[in-house]
Amino acid sequence: MTETLTVFGTNPRTGAALDPVTVETTEAEVDGFVAAAAQAAPVFAGLDRTSRARLLDAIADGIEARRAELVEIASAETGFGSAKLDGEINRAAYQFRFFADVVEEGSYLEVAIDPPADTPMGPRPDLRRILSPLGPVAVFGSSNFPFAFSVLGGDTASALAAGCPVVVKAHPSHPATSQLSFDVIAAALTDGPASRGTVALVHGMRAGAALVAHPSIKAVGFTGSLRGGRALLDIINTRDEPIPFYGELSSLNPVIVTPAAAAERAEEIGAGLVNSFTVGSGQLCTKPGFVMVPDGSDGDRLVAAVRSGLAESTGHVLLNEGIYATYTGETMALSARTDVTTNTAPAADGPGFGVAPMVVETTLDDLDPGLVHEVFGPITVIARYRSDSVISSATTVFDTFPPSLTATLHHADDDTLPGLTQLATARAGRVVYNGFPTGVAVSWAQHHGGPWPSTNTLHTSVGATAIRRFLRPITFQNAPQGVLPTELRDGYTEVPRRIDGVLHAARS
Amino acid sequence: MTETLTVFGTNPRTGAALDPVTVETTEAEVDGFVAAAAQAAPVFAGLDRTSRARLLDAIADGIEARRAELVEIASAETGFGSAKLDGEINRAAYQFRFFADVVEEGSYLEVAIDPPADTPMGPRPDLRRILSPLGPVAVFGSSNFPFAFSVLGGDTASALAAGCPVVVKAHPSHPATSQLSFDVIAAALTDGPASRGTVALVHGMRAGAALVAHPSIKAVGFTGSLRGGRALLDIINTRDEPIPFYGELSSLNPVIVTPAAAAERAEEIGAGLVNSFTVGSGQLCTKPGFVMVPDGSDGDRLVAAVRSGLAESTGHVLLNEGIYATYTGETMALSARTDVTTNTAPAADGPGFGVAPMVVETTLDDLDPGLVHEVFGPITVIARYRSDSVISSATTVFDTFPPSLTATLHHADDDTLPGLTQLATARAGRVVYNGFPTGVAVSWAQHHGGPWPSTNTLHTSVGATAIRRFLRPITFQNAPQGVLPTELRDGYTEVPRRIDGVLHAARS
Repeated sequence: MTETLTVFGTNPRTGAALDPVTVETTEAEVDGFVAAAAQAAPVFAGLDRTSRARLLDAIADGIEARRAELVEIASAETGFGSAKLDGEINRAAYQFRFFADVVEEGSYLEVAIDPPADTPMGPRPDLRRILSPLGPVAVFGSSNFPFAFSVLGGDTASALAAGCPVVVKAHPSHPATSQLSFDVIAAALTDGPASRGTVALVHGMRAGAALVAHPSIKAVGFTGSLRGGRALLDIINTRDEPIPFYGELSSLNPVIVTPAAAAERAEEIGAGLVNSFTVGSGQLCTKPGFVMVPDGSDGDRLVAAVRSGLAESTGHVLLNEGIYATYTGETMALSARTDVTTNTAPAADGPGFGVAPMVVETTLDDLDPGLVHEVFGPITVIARYRSDSVISSATTVFDTFPPSLTATLHHADDDTLPGLTQLATARAGRVVYNGFPTGVAVSWAQHHGGPWPSTNTLHTSVGATAIRRFLRPITFQNAPQGVLPTELRDGYTEVPRRIDGVLHAARS
Repeated sequence: MTETLTVFGTNPRTGAALDPVTVETTEAEVDGFVAAAAQAAPVFAGLDRTSRARLLDAIADGIEARRAELVEIASAETGFGSAKLDGEINRAAYQFRFFADVVEEGSYLEVAIDPPADTPMGPRPDLRRILSPLGPVAVFGSSNFPFAFSVLGGDTASALAAGCPVVVKAHPSHPATSQLSFDVIAAALTDGPASRGTVALVHGMRAGAALVAHPSIKAVGFTGSLRGGRALLDIINTRDEPIPFYGELSSLNPVIVTPAAAAERAEEIGAGLVNSFTVGSGQLCTKPGFVMVPDGSDGDRLVAAVRSGLAESTGHVLLNEGIYATYTGETMALSARTDVTTNTAPAADGPGFGVAPMVVETTLDDLDPGLVHEVFGPITVIARYRSDSVISSATTVFDTFPPSLTATLHHADDDTLPGLTQLATARAGRVVYNGFPTGVAVSWAQHHGGPWPSTNTLHTSVGATAIRRFLRPITFQNAPQGVLPTELRDGYTEVPRRIDGVLHAARS
């Protein structure tokens, strides 16, 4: 007999347990959900693109229609304020509509048609290639984005856009939010052309492990910790069929301020930095966790601006006990150290999971590499470097720390930029100039991914190309017109197609 | 002290050892090669596309210039005839030239530019996305294609096209061929803009394992057995950084002949089948290993045509002792069975690794699933099915056996085709109509990959999109024009670009 485990959230503002939401999903129930998803898969894959786009739009409409309820319940479970959650609702709805556009535009199908021809290799048959849905996908909701990277998040949106059923593992930090989010999708499914089995929700670690191990699951999308991701990867490695794991895991997001930039905009950069490392209570995968600031008076001005921003900063409520415990443990240890300077916002630690932001100051020459790693919460490390050594200092930093999702360069018109760019592109997936890495636009050119351990793939979890993770190619050789997918038939012009090597735009 | 192990090939026609070629590469030497590749990586990545295309063309020229030598040495090591090897030389040279075209065409960069804009999520910065080389790649040469899937093969060509240095592990079946192939590349490098460290060659299993475990290797391309692939995957799973493994592993390649097709073309299909399962001495990953033929007189005619083709078939020399031992073991066991009919070509087993082709006949109702698995060599299994049950019989077959690279449907104008197509696309990467799966064209629309265990990826090892395996996205946010890659700069029109979501063809 297995124990029935109640699922409930916690109010981070008080630390008190919230009302029970449901019970943990059993392995038998996981089996049932995945079987239903596998059965729904060919039907859902067979939907025409317009119908699938309208389903995505309907989910977006549903998200906005239930905005007030969603924000209220998520605020209770995560401690996030309504501005952050409202922004996430905007983003979640936008993502579904954006993927509806991506599906309708049709480039994601990568249609290529090679007519029969004589080649130096001999005669070539008629070949027609298209991308096709992988099958049921497991998505793991994140802690820190109860909407935009959870049940209603980009992984779900892009997998559904691709034509794949989705089984979501709810994050334990917001089970009621996850359940209500699921209801939004279920309502859109009920009214639409896809079956209910197309999306399911499970709760509990045991269910998550069973999901990843299930032979009918064909890919896993995950946004979370390196440790959590590694654990799922280890389960995948025991499967008979190794499936793609799309993990977004851990990121330091270094910021480099050149001497010229400090001279030009010390105060602006300092204020921007405080905003960037405290937004979302510092619980963002793109939080700048390490900042290189030049020594000398310009750098001093920048640090002074950070300290003054910090002094005006309010307290923050972290979203769960684990993040809270790690943050308080780290900040207490740092405060006790004599080799670094720590500054803390005056806001006292609150009740529940309330904490004060912290800035750690050190120098690159004295840097203890153990000091620098991703910590969720409103904390960052500033390391001063000799202002005549920006390239070699940056090289040291990029060689010392693991790659990140982002790298940020604050610069003026100076000749260090090509060298810094080369260092940054080698160690990050997105390079930000004179800005901050937090705030990830959803668009065609976005990339949210970087070398391990920031992610483990050549793909992104944000932006149009996120859909590529859930598709596989199929080529038809000398197929009769009647059995071809519509987009591969002669004369079809509604999606971009490569014909005999030449790319043709869609005819509108 | 480690033993120095001599590397030498074997003459498959006699079984005799050939002259020593070199000694096995030590782990220290592997370290040196990979370090040189890592050093060459940014330089090679920085080459403009035209220079890289010209390097690929120079390798193609070198292959053709040394055609006679290459064919001679490969024939001695593999037992393949000069027609097969000459075809492979054509193919290898064509692949390098094709990837030169792919590089010059520039779509593979997937350039997308999102200008700053106001969106429902708020203001969007300037975002510019491009694909960028991954870094040093390990390529494992196959046994069965000494040119087209080895040192001079598609993995090497596509990785170099992507801008990645390559370290090739030579297949032990043809070390001298591999060494001469490497010399062709080295000569092109010496004369060209890339450093010698850009390509290296290693010999020996120990070196292969060290290569895959090396932290500076960023992806692995492999064409070989399921067991070999799984072993490399297990090494990858022990790495700190999990890197992509592109394995092309095992494939049964089922062929389904519908009753209408048998009625229409029994003799033609039978003759084509004999050719397809014996070409390359049946040592092709796309060999049709299982054929569904209807019962009744039309199916009988087809089987008679196979038997008569087999009777005219000559003996074949298999390429190494392992393949020979497996083939002879399997065929001896099959001959001894009373529940299946076996027919063997009259050609007696030759000296060395010479064997006779075999056809196994059974019925689907009596099928022993253990009978059916990939066996290298000129053997196939024909299973007769009840001609009124083609869909349910095909369903049984696709449910019983693992997915494949290909599935082939021989059909007339009949209404079973949509159902068979749906079954086939679910379980294969390429679906062939009224043809045979052997002979894989290199082109834009080709796909050579399928669900596990045929491959383990969403990518192909043949055709234009093979380059995608060795690239990762980078997005530049608000970058000054001067630090952007040429293809991302304002006004550049020589590659297709997506601007604000709209795909623009290149201006020629």
